[in-house]
Amino acid sequence: MTYGCIASMKARPGLRDEVVSLLLGAADGLRQAGCDLYLVGLSEDDETTIWVTEVWRTREQHDASLELPEAKAAIGRAVPMLTGEFTRQDMAVAGGLGL
Amino acid sequence: MTYGCIASMKARPGLRDEVVSLLLGAADGLRQAGCDLYLVGLSEDDETTIWVTEVWRTREQHDASLELPEAKAAIGRAVPMLTGEFTRQDMAVAGGLGL
Repeated sequence: MTYGCIASMKARPGLRDEVVSLLLGAADGLRQAGCDLYLVGLSEDDETTIWVTEVWRTREQHDASLELPEAKAAIGRAVPMLTGEFTRQDMAVAGGLGL
Repeated sequence: MTYGCIASMKARPGLRDEVVSLLLGAADGLRQAGCDLYLVGLSEDDETTIWVTEVWRTREQHDASLELPEAKAAIGRAVPMLTGEFTRQDMAVAGGLGL
C-alpha cells in the first residue's frame, strides 16, 4: 500500500488565502518527487484552518521532498503566517476512486 | 470551489479490513454520482481508525449520494462493525495535484 497523510494547520487571522497560495504554488514540483495526490482544502468550520491530504508512492519520497530547497523556502515563508497548531495523521492508503 | 470532506471512523477490534472492503466496494458507483476523489486510508497510529477523504463536484451531490439504495445498504452493513466514534471536517477545495 502507498503512503498517505492528512495534516491540518491554522493560519493567523486574515492570512489563510496567502498560505493556501503558497501551498498550491509548491504543488507543481511534487509529482516528479513521487506525489500522486496533494489536496488543499479550507475548513468550513472556521476561517483559519487548512487541511492537506497527500498520497505518495513511498513514505521515503514524502520525507525526502521536505528537504528540497523549494520546499524549505516555501515552509520558511509559510511559518510566520501560521499559529503553530498542527495535526498530522499518517496512513496506509487502501484505495478508492480518482487516484 | 468544489466540496470536500475528511472523515474518520473506528472499527471494532479485528474488523477494520472488513469495513475497508465495504467502503472500497461502494466506491465504484460514486463517480457518476458526482464524486471526483474517494480516498480510503488505514491509520498508522492504531489498528482501528479509518480515514476517508472525499471531493465532490457539489455538496448537494455528496448529500444525495448518501440516500442511494447501495449507499444505505453499505452503511447498514458497516455500522455494526464500527464503534460509533466519528469525526468529519467539511472543506472548500482550493486545489492541488492529482485531482
